[in-house]
Amino acid sequence: MGRLVMKFGGTSVANIDRIRNVARHVKREVDAGHDVAVVVSAMSGKTNELVEWCGDASPLHDAREYDAVVASGEQVTSGLLAIVLQGMGIQARSWQGWQIPIKTSDAHASARILEIDGSEISARFKDRQEVAVIAGFQGINPQTNRITTLGRGGSDTSAVAIAAAIRADRCDIYTDVDGVYTTDPRVVPKARRLDKIAFEDMLELASLGAKVLQVRSVELGMVHNIPVFVRSSFDKPEDIDPHGTPPGTLICSEEEIMESHVVTGIAFSKDEAQISLRQIEDKPGVAAAIFGPLADANINVDMIVQNVSEDGKTTDLTFTVPASDYNRARDTITSSKGKIGYARLDSATDVSKVSVIGSGMRSHAGVAAKAFKALSERNINIRAITTSEIKFSVLIDAAYTELAVRTLHTLYGLDQT
Amino acid sequence: MGRLVMKFGGTSVANIDRIRNVARHVKREVDAGHDVAVVVSAMSGKTNELVEWCGDASPLHDAREYDAVVASGEQVTSGLLAIVLQGMGIQARSWQGWQIPIKTSDAHASARILEIDGSEISARFKDRQEVAVIAGFQGINPQTNRITTLGRGGSDTSAVAIAAAIRADRCDIYTDVDGVYTTDPRVVPKARRLDKIAFEDMLELASLGAKVLQVRSVELGMVHNIPVFVRSSFDKPEDIDPHGTPPGTLICSEEEIMESHVVTGIAFSKDEAQISLRQIEDKPGVAAAIFGPLADANINVDMIVQNVSEDGKTTDLTFTVPASDYNRARDTITSSKGKIGYARLDSATDVSKVSVIGSGMRSHAGVAAKAFKALSERNINIRAITTSEIKFSVLIDAAYTELAVRTLHTLYGLDQT
Repeated sequence: MGRLVMKFGGTSVANIDRIRNVARHVKREVDAGHDVAVVVSAMSGKTNELVEWCGDASPLHDAREYDAVVASGEQVTSGLLAIVLQGMGIQARSWQGWQIPIKTSDAHASARILEIDGSEISARFKDRQEVAVIAGFQGINPQTNRITTLGRGGSDTSAVAIAAAIRADRCDIYTDVDGVYTTDPRVVPKARRLDKIAFEDMLELASLGAKVLQVRSVELGMVHNIPVFVRSSFDKPEDIDPHGTPPGTLICSEEEIMESHVVTGIAFSKDEAQISLRQIEDKPGVAAAIFGPLADANINVDMIVQNVSEDGKTTDLTFTVPASDYNRARDTITSSKGKIGYARLDSATDVSKVSVIGSGMRSHAGVAAKAFKALSERNINIRAITTSEIKFSVLIDAAYTELAVRTLHTLYGLDQT
Repeated sequence: MGRLVMKFGGTSVANIDRIRNVARHVKREVDAGHDVAVVVSAMSGKTNELVEWCGDASPLHDAREYDAVVASGEQVTSGLLAIVLQGMGIQARSWQGWQIPIKTSDAHASARILEIDGSEISARFKDRQEVAVIAGFQGINPQTNRITTLGRGGSDTSAVAIAAAIRADRCDIYTDVDGVYTTDPRVVPKARRLDKIAFEDMLELASLGAKVLQVRSVELGMVHNIPVFVRSSFDKPEDIDPHGTPPGTLICSEEEIMESHVVTGIAFSKDEAQISLRQIEDKPGVAAAIFGPLADANINVDMIVQNVSEDGKTTDLTFTVPASDYNRARDTITSSKGKIGYARLDSATDVSKVSVIGSGMRSHAGVAAKAFKALSERNINIRAITTSEIKFSVLIDAAYTELAVRTLHTLYGLDQT
């Protein structure tokens, strides 16, 4: 007997039949004797529709009103799932963010969860074995009493935060893939599903382009040490043994992973653009002159690499931005040219970033060097490199992305056997 | 300068274009210097869709979950209207029932409003000329902190209750007809729109089949003496002079109506069924034996007429029920036959009720007698009669409904000239 949070996304609750399927998953866990809180998204397509209406109402809309409108989608599915569960003879009630309450920051449309009071939900587990069906993606600004939302994909974060608040033993994320893979199986057919992955590695994977989970939800799992289990929502509820080990990937602390590989996975992102400034005068304040205006324009700068030029007096600086921000970034830099002082701006939009992740790197030297050699043997030119304790990334021509990912996947022994 | 509540129904907010039209109506009143609270329904069709989903989820669903699901419709329109108003440069914010709060009884799905705190809305009128955009049809159960709804058509009631809470000078109900008519214009082309009607008369009209307003909203208007103005939502906002007298019907206290007619209007309802019990033994407790089981079965009994039989020892009793409840009512009575003790049950389902309403009847004798004579001259057989201080109703064969309504409309001088 334990305590469980189960999270279902939009495709899993797209209509009443699918909601009924979700309810059977819940029933299985209840029948196994677990206390269960379920977190649901809006029916698939519903949030997009509501977002569109807000845009039609006014292109520059008040984020507080946007939140009030958009949060209604999860309200509907939580109520419907509670009704279906009750119809199956299971005690259940729906909870909206403001009812629990899930207190958040005042950053409407991208609020951060600050505090969740899990006492009432826990009390109801004890008193009446009642399943809590919680509207994901939303909370309340306690100062103004207005609804907030957490930004797209926020229901993952809701689920892990609630798991922490009610001290759950595990948070199960039901999704349209059956776990976390060593890399995207569409690119590398030999990609392997990981049975376990450390929080740190998952954080890098999610940040670097794997879209299984929202990054913030992994952070919360790590901070509160809540094991997060990524599993398929397509499995038939009846076929699953609640006491067995279903297919999926457990994201947990490093200590719980016995047999660890040096490299856990390969992530990649094609939506990158590179900007290089040549022969910048090497003086204090030049970085601020470049990145200050970009930050003001709300452009997310990713890789930053600075080299000393051949002349030894000036420096070259390369950075990447999301491809969608490329034009704005370029305009921002060129309009500050006088202040920065550089000779030439080179850029490329057909580049991609390939990252190798593994907390095992901490104790293994030469992991990256192997990669550089393998890529050069394939004639793949590396435009820039960044490294951290548990990952390194290379920027390459986009055309070589798949070749590079497959090469590294084999190199680090990740291929299925 | 005054304080105004404006209420718009589902067809008026069916899409963003129509919401924009509503916003122009609001802007007109704001520009005229009024404090404005707007009450909106869900987009037309939306509530039906949500109700249907609840039914699909489980035929016997928890009314608390039903309310959580169904109240989302008004939440969406209130947010969207606030966005559109802001886009026009008008200060506005949306309010959900629980935010104000609108405290109601715990009768989920058909809750009654108990108390509304209008202080924050009033303060914001004063401090920042902010329009309050309020989700109609909903409130909160203060004991459980859960959303309640007021039953279908409840947004009219929300509007008048809010008008009372903020001490508005008037509550404007924008609807798809341009006012209250002496009778249904589809039946009597000569029906006249009333400029004014007393609360009491409107209450009878609404109760007896005129579907312009929810009965409860008229009651609230009467109790709190809030003039309610029924007007068309199809008028172009630009064509209306905010200082003039637009077409519509003002529902107000009797004293404000200078020129009053004895009869105000004719209502009718075709969804009636008649049940007559013959030769009931005339003993104490027999009425309870009949109507007790009907009440337990939640069947609404309307007209009740009791006559002494020809033999002077037994009595005949006739009553009406909604046609949709006829079968259940008949079964309920026949299964209690032994307890009641009657000789024969006669019934008719093709009957209709025609009612003549007018608070002027109080001071005029013989109003009903004129009607009985006129109907008999047309060979219309009266099956039963009930009277009250300000109205009387006759039960007749449904086939004669239109003829009877037209005859009475002319008889009491209600035809257009």
